[in-house]
Amino acid sequence: MTTKYYAKPLSKLISELSRLPGIGGKSAQRLAFHILSLGEREVSALAEAILEAKREMKYCSVCGNLTDADPCGVCADAARDRSLICVVENPRDVAAVERTREYGGLYHVLHGAISPMDGIGPEDINLKQLLLRLQSDEVKEVILATNPNIEGEATAMYAARLIKPVGIRVSRIAHGIPVGGDLEYADEITLSKAIEGRREI
Amino acid sequence: MTTKYYAKPLSKLISELSRLPGIGGKSAQRLAFHILSLGEREVSALAEAILEAKREMKYCSVCGNLTDADPCGVCADAARDRSLICVVENPRDVAAVERTREYGGLYHVLHGAISPMDGIGPEDINLKQLLLRLQSDEVKEVILATNPNIEGEATAMYAARLIKPVGIRVSRIAHGIPVGGDLEYADEITLSKAIEGRREI
Repeated sequence: MTTKYYAKPLSKLISELSRLPGIGGKSAQRLAFHILSLGEREVSALAEAILEAKREMKYCSVCGNLTDADPCGVCADAARDRSLICVVENPRDVAAVERTREYGGLYHVLHGAISPMDGIGPEDINLKQLLLRLQSDEVKEVILATNPNIEGEATAMYAARLIKPVGIRVSRIAHGIPVGGDLEYADEITLSKAIEGRREI
Repeated sequence: MTTKYYAKPLSKLISELSRLPGIGGKSAQRLAFHILSLGEREVSALAEAILEAKREMKYCSVCGNLTDADPCGVCADAARDRSLICVVENPRDVAAVERTREYGGLYHVLHGAISPMDGIGPEDINLKQLLLRLQSDEVKEVILATNPNIEGEATAMYAARLIKPVGIRVSRIAHGIPVGGDLEYADEITLSKAIEGRREI
């Protein structure tokens, strides 16, 4: 997709947009023209939302979730069940579990899954911090809600082997979610069934 | 698509992104997380490209094309054939014609097409400025390259009726089967236009 027939500021915008995932050359062009057609205030709002999100969002020092406050809203919420920790691969999965409205415990975000093929080992994900959290007497159960694919399963098995000796119950969400699927895209009912039907491993 | 399970700066970014054309809730979420995963410099570059494009890009006071200089590069180019004006609906069409590398004349961008259904009349598009340009002795031919749909045809017919009395040649781009296309799959109107517009070989 050549942008050389556009003036530089426009072609620069198109090339920046086309670097975003799922945005091809034609989409980037369409988005760029749409942005130019917006009012100045709307364009500022978009740019500011991008900058502000990057500036304000950080990782919770307790659970690793994305947050604008540390500790995050869930970790700071006294009403949440502190005996339960749901371990997920990424912050989108936290939002997915929250959308079920069925889970009242805490979270732990691994920021990835063990994947020897991609050179990602246990030390490359947020597992150490999870083990530190388990030293508190409060935690009674860890729910492993990594994705039901090879990497997620491997991560769950690895985490289970680390956690069980500590004497804490370890469970895995049920395979109500189609194997090979992505937690992030599961519908609320399937996901809450999966949590409900979790089994000790 | 609810974003209430995300911290405010993130949900604001998701909602800003989901207002863009062709970006649904899930895509906006994916884009937002991607943006957060970028380095600070990359995020600044994206935001700055958006702001700069909006700040620098304006319409050429001669042809109406999008440009960062006035008059635009085409209008200012002494090597272009000033006897030819190609009339298009929007700046993307200028880029489309430029990509053919076959056209050496000037352009005129209407910024729309006549569409009574949408309440867009001849006075709502950039036609008046076209007629002013035709007062120059240089212009010998106007090529109407509006889209081959109802609105584009109506606009072309209307413009032709205005321009002909000035004594300038008016032409319309050919309708026909796309190169590489299949006769069998062409719609009836296109095919009859192609037959109607046949040329002796």
